[in-house]
Amino acid sequence: MSTSSPLEPVDTFDYVIFGATGDLTMRKLLPALYRRFADGQVPADSRIVGTARSPLDDATYRERARKALDEHVGQQERDDDMVNRFLAMVHYVSLNGADENGNWDGLRDVLGDDGRVRVFYLATAPALYGDVARNLDAKGLRTDASRIVLEKPIGTDLETARRVNEDVGRYFPENSIFRIDHYLGKEAVQNIIALRFANPMLERMWDRESIEYVQVTAAETVGLEGRGGYYDGSGALRDMIQNHLLQVLTVVAMERPASLDADALRDEKVRVLKSLKPLDRDNLQANVARGQYVGGTSGGKAVPSYSDELAGETPSKTETFVALKAEIDTPRWRGVPFYLRSGKRMPRKLTEIVVQFRAGEPGLFGEAHPGSRLVIRVQPDESVSLPLFVKHAGTGFALEEADASSKLSQRSRAGFHDSYEGLLLDAVKGSPALFVRKDETEAAWEWVTPILEGWRQDASGPDAYEAGTWGPASARELLEREGHAWVEDAAA
Amino acid sequence: MSTSSPLEPVDTFDYVIFGATGDLTMRKLLPALYRRFADGQVPADSRIVGTARSPLDDATYRERARKALDEHVGQQERDDDMVNRFLAMVHYVSLNGADENGNWDGLRDVLGDDGRVRVFYLATAPALYGDVARNLDAKGLRTDASRIVLEKPIGTDLETARRVNEDVGRYFPENSIFRIDHYLGKEAVQNIIALRFANPMLERMWDRESIEYVQVTAAETVGLEGRGGYYDGSGALRDMIQNHLLQVLTVVAMERPASLDADALRDEKVRVLKSLKPLDRDNLQANVARGQYVGGTSGGKAVPSYSDELAGETPSKTETFVALKAEIDTPRWRGVPFYLRSGKRMPRKLTEIVVQFRAGEPGLFGEAHPGSRLVIRVQPDESVSLPLFVKHAGTGFALEEADASSKLSQRSRAGFHDSYEGLLLDAVKGSPALFVRKDETEAAWEWVTPILEGWRQDASGPDAYEAGTWGPASARELLEREGHAWVEDAAA
Repeated sequence: MSTSSPLEPVDTFDYVIFGATGDLTMRKLLPALYRRFADGQVPADSRIVGTARSPLDDATYRERARKALDEHVGQQERDDDMVNRFLAMVHYVSLNGADENGNWDGLRDVLGDDGRVRVFYLATAPALYGDVARNLDAKGLRTDASRIVLEKPIGTDLETARRVNEDVGRYFPENSIFRIDHYLGKEAVQNIIALRFANPMLERMWDRESIEYVQVTAAETVGLEGRGGYYDGSGALRDMIQNHLLQVLTVVAMERPASLDADALRDEKVRVLKSLKPLDRDNLQANVARGQYVGGTSGGKAVPSYSDELAGETPSKTETFVALKAEIDTPRWRGVPFYLRSGKRMPRKLTEIVVQFRAGEPGLFGEAHPGSRLVIRVQPDESVSLPLFVKHAGTGFALEEADASSKLSQRSRAGFHDSYEGLLLDAVKGSPALFVRKDETEAAWEWVTPILEGWRQDASGPDAYEAGTWGPASARELLEREGHAWVEDAAA
Repeated sequence: MSTSSPLEPVDTFDYVIFGATGDLTMRKLLPALYRRFADGQVPADSRIVGTARSPLDDATYRERARKALDEHVGQQERDDDMVNRFLAMVHYVSLNGADENGNWDGLRDVLGDDGRVRVFYLATAPALYGDVARNLDAKGLRTDASRIVLEKPIGTDLETARRVNEDVGRYFPENSIFRIDHYLGKEAVQNIIALRFANPMLERMWDRESIEYVQVTAAETVGLEGRGGYYDGSGALRDMIQNHLLQVLTVVAMERPASLDADALRDEKVRVLKSLKPLDRDNLQANVARGQYVGGTSGGKAVPSYSDELAGETPSKTETFVALKAEIDTPRWRGVPFYLRSGKRMPRKLTEIVVQFRAGEPGLFGEAHPGSRLVIRVQPDESVSLPLFVKHAGTGFALEEADASSKLSQRSRAGFHDSYEGLLLDAVKGSPALFVRKDETEAAWEWVTPILEGWRQDASGPDAYEAGTWGPASARELLEREGHAWVEDAAA
């Protein structure tokens, strides 16, 4: 993992985006590249080449890009001159990446033959990944200095994930394939590694002796946002748990890696995934809750049910909420529940990791007090808090928790505004540590697929929960059975 | 240790102060009693009886008391009506406590015979403690519900301390003798107990395996403040180290007590004092630095040397600064230096405890990083901070410390403005946990006296240090020999 200065410029590169007129490109990729450029990290002779099927010229695409920056980059970060210089790097080639007869020559002309690093960023439908990879190879566009970045989802189950990996792997060696999971680009998630291994105090406490349970929550307030087509074929388990939340779990649970090198790190993460106790038909009921929202209130406004938003012809059984109890069958973690939860139409946007330590020796301070909680918050603000118990001011020895939290993001000029910024340039630099390796994706699907199977064989479908609540009762019951509670219930 | 509600009123009492016209009474005792009264803890039919030799009447003394409150209680805490009601409790008896023919009848008349708790607070010259105790007993003023509070210094060495304890102990049983050390009244010092034993994370780290060293600093910016007569006969070792700093050391180092009861707590504290490795003539040079300030700058103003302030006829060898390395010869602490330091005319007013943890396993994050530091600050603000190492925002895994500190005082309405407040009422309640037991005082003197002896036999005297600096070079060298540095040197 690079320890070079965060602002060091990277080498001149070509970034080729497939799906360049899409939402992800406009909302995330172009703003991230702009910010890195404005920060001095991107040499001005680099090229950013958008490709998509629409027949646009450079000028029209640049105007779309300018609008995207207007919308998604804060006013104080924008500067007309800077934006113009950035847009001068931007090109557009009308090209269907899946079509071997597409305008590949047009792309070759823009890229030239100067041996610089090429990043092919696939922000298209995942079904096309194999075709695009094959065409890039066949047309001679894949050079030795090329990398290919794959957005999630990599497949929809173990079998299809293997197929995508195989298809792309036929043309690109594994060390040039960058499977992006933007959670790994988040300061707070990377900080789990620093917190665990740079603080002996925490490293010593990081096991079943001292930790009672771990909770990872990724809650959204939004519903479908017009993405019904994709989402209904996916659901919360595939969309959030299989990738983001399992990635977080591996970082929380992995053994101390031999180094922070990409493979040392990912070896340990895979070991965690492979040590997950299997969930399947037989134990699904006891360990997994799924839900689908019905009409309710979100942000003070009445919102429709999932099925009304979807407006499908037959009732959907897709889950918009999952809560599950994972167990890692290793000496360090045996018996410690890892509760993962993700849902749409929750009461607030919240992504956080809660590590609940066991209570101390009772007795000295009268009534028993609970253990401390390390809270690593990813959204809405990136922060770490580890309140210590102190005495309540005044006479006597009543205890209270001293608030001690620390914002992580924007604590320095080197801070990124968005998790894509670091990751996009890591691909340029060829630093794969924060990307997902083939065996990681497949191990995650190996654990997730039997849950999907179990659900398919279960006639009952997801439990209803009111929009604007923390999911169905079954999610609470999952923890109550263990004598635990979700953070917001415990705080209430 | 009481866990009753901090604001619960105490029973009606009589507080008799010997030395009632003195500085301590005016600056600390009356303001503290007023604040507890204004907070509702002191029943209005209690009596506060000042005694001293000056022939004053109640009205005159009340006016002096009013002036003291004007000066030493913040304007927003004062209220004319409240002050008047407080002063109505205040009485004065002209009485020389050492004189068996003094006006004891006058005192008896004011106190009456109503069986309430009596606290005799001795804020006089310590040489008189025995006489006052004898007279209180002889005149029948010591009731079964009486306690006697003794201000420091208890003696000037082991022999004289034993004599004071014996003299007072002849008339007052040990459980009615309250040796006050106002450091024990401080939130931050009491919090060491809560931090250590209510946070398993810290409790596990609290030994030689994890702690590299401990520093306790009590630095004043002031010089003699007109107290030259007392101070020159005492010096920093007697005035600060023997009591306050050794008390702090015992609380940092003691084993987990069986309970927070006064004797359980003090048993453990005594064990620490008795386990201190003796310092004497033979190892003094290597373990103790002493200094006396010469002219310099304090708060931007030129200030005179100690000897000029003192204006004595012969040069004084009294130390105004001590730094020493104490070692506790127990399995928990063997080899861990406890650096204690106190001085006058330092660059700033600062009382704090620094617990330096050892660095973690090296390697993962490139260059070695230091261990964490738990900083418990007593002055100027009471706070606890325990920064964790987190990653520097941006790419790479450079580490930095995340500031995470928590103010301790005034976090709640129950917070005291001054450490005397809680202690004065603890004496009323008969709660001795935060007072110093006979064997504690004597064990502290037993360790300190050989240092005094060693100095007396050493012709060289204290090292000069410029006023407004952190003491003589010998204080820095003391730590450098161990590869350590005082906090402010390490920060620079």
